[in-house]
Amino acid sequence: MTHVLDEAIALTPVGSDSRVFRAQTHPAYANMVGPFGGITAATVIHGLQQHPDVLGEPLSLTINFVAPIAYGEWDLHLDPVRTNRTNQHWVFSIRQEGVTVATGSAVFAVIRDTWADVEAAPPEAVPAAEVEPTDFLDFIAWAKNYDKRFLVGGIVDGETADDSTSTLWVRDQPERPIDFPSLASMADCFFPRIFLRHGVYMPAGTISMTTYFHATAEELAAHGTDHVLATARGSRFGHGHFDQFAELWSGETLLATTHQLVYYKDPKVPA
Amino acid sequence: MTHVLDEAIALTPVGSDSRVFRAQTHPAYANMVGPFGGITAATVIHGLQQHPDVLGEPLSLTINFVAPIAYGEWDLHLDPVRTNRTNQHWVFSIRQEGVTVATGSAVFAVIRDTWADVEAAPPEAVPAAEVEPTDFLDFIAWAKNYDKRFLVGGIVDGETADDSTSTLWVRDQPERPIDFPSLASMADCFFPRIFLRHGVYMPAGTISMTTYFHATAEELAAHGTDHVLATARGSRFGHGHFDQFAELWSGETLLATTHQLVYYKDPKVPA
Repeated sequence: MTHVLDEAIALTPVGSDSRVFRAQTHPAYANMVGPFGGITAATVIHGLQQHPDVLGEPLSLTINFVAPIAYGEWDLHLDPVRTNRTNQHWVFSIRQEGVTVATGSAVFAVIRDTWADVEAAPPEAVPAAEVEPTDFLDFIAWAKNYDKRFLVGGIVDGETADDSTSTLWVRDQPERPIDFPSLASMADCFFPRIFLRHGVYMPAGTISMTTYFHATAEELAAHGTDHVLATARGSRFGHGHFDQFAELWSGETLLATTHQLVYYKDPKVPA
Repeated sequence: MTHVLDEAIALTPVGSDSRVFRAQTHPAYANMVGPFGGITAATVIHGLQQHPDVLGEPLSLTINFVAPIAYGEWDLHLDPVRTNRTNQHWVFSIRQEGVTVATGSAVFAVIRDTWADVEAAPPEAVPAAEVEPTDFLDFIAWAKNYDKRFLVGGIVDGETADDSTSTLWVRDQPERPIDFPSLASMADCFFPRIFLRHGVYMPAGTISMTTYFHATAEELAAHGTDHVLATARGSRFGHGHFDQFAELWSGETLLATTHQLVYYKDPKVPA
């Protein structure tokens, strides 16, 4: 049986042109308006991996959400800009009926063995088995595809907070061995930090998102279907946008760091 | 007299096509191989600001260094993908003799007054006046255009370190009121974190860099020519690359957060 994530990230080449792949939004990954950004990022990674000229493994992905993505078909246009000895640069766009709705760039790289160190440290956390899973509001479809166990900064509860940190155990639901597409999606598993600061749901959406994939395919295979420890925080909120910096951990192994810039409507609350 | 940074970021439209601007590398901002990435980012921001259709102020910039940029002329190709009510999405490429040497995307936005908070805190630092300026090696030309006063993680001294953090006071030299191009450049003022870990200079270069501009033009004007407090750290080193996360502060105001992915050659030292 095909996992719902694999259904959602499926692409087919358009004609004989290896530069264009057709995808389709999946109702299971719907967000409040349009598809969940994480699944779109995952589909881009999956498309790049399918390209006949791809070199190595994903190293970085930037995706800009330019206009609302409508439910239905979309086309991924891939441009392999340059292949160097150890890395490869791509630019891409997502189009619907001729209109560009997302743009971005990606770097793939050959895995080289070098001096290495994980300098950052994972947040402290009791084991996933000791934390109760929680759900987001019923109308946030995509969140149902994740088992989410919050250690701090859990679901919106009507209370304002000074700290926008969320730390949670997260994995695909049903369980699925982690890979680059699912990691790309998980990097967007945090609800907008502004919800936490104000204790309420409010209009907000990612403008631009960048993920650096530190993990190798081998490390992801070793991780398997375990929960990932994910933590996110915003640095500055103002003028209708904020940033979010997040880390995704497998034990002591930092799988990915990811950053996004998020739009929000003024909550009209006292400063 | 024109400031050296303004000389370095100068662009002229190519013909009557507002989508192409010609720039030229400046010897004062040379790096070990090719121009300093920060000045290239600054020139892109400057080019976008000059475009007749530009909306608002810079909000985010991603630049991918695809191939070495040769000293001499380069062309900036700008594509205004979409203008929404409050933001505007751009993609761009940098070409030399028909070859793409850099790609990227940018978001500009109209400044809206909303609820706001700076959640992060600046690093502790004694005043800039109490710290001695230091210089990088003589052959790193660009660094001479910055007054750099390190609080931690200063210049490479032959000692290895477990912590890749650098915190410094930095400003243009000679003094110049800060603006978006100079902030974009300053966001790249940190030498590669791998130097600090190994205590030696070694081949390394930025692959991809993203800056989120939290500051408004008004805040930058208020900052003027003062030193900016800048801090950077890497999270994970391995397989020939590492990430860097940095913040640029004006007092309690977070001007920018910036992330980059950096390539390095294996230092061939025991792990």
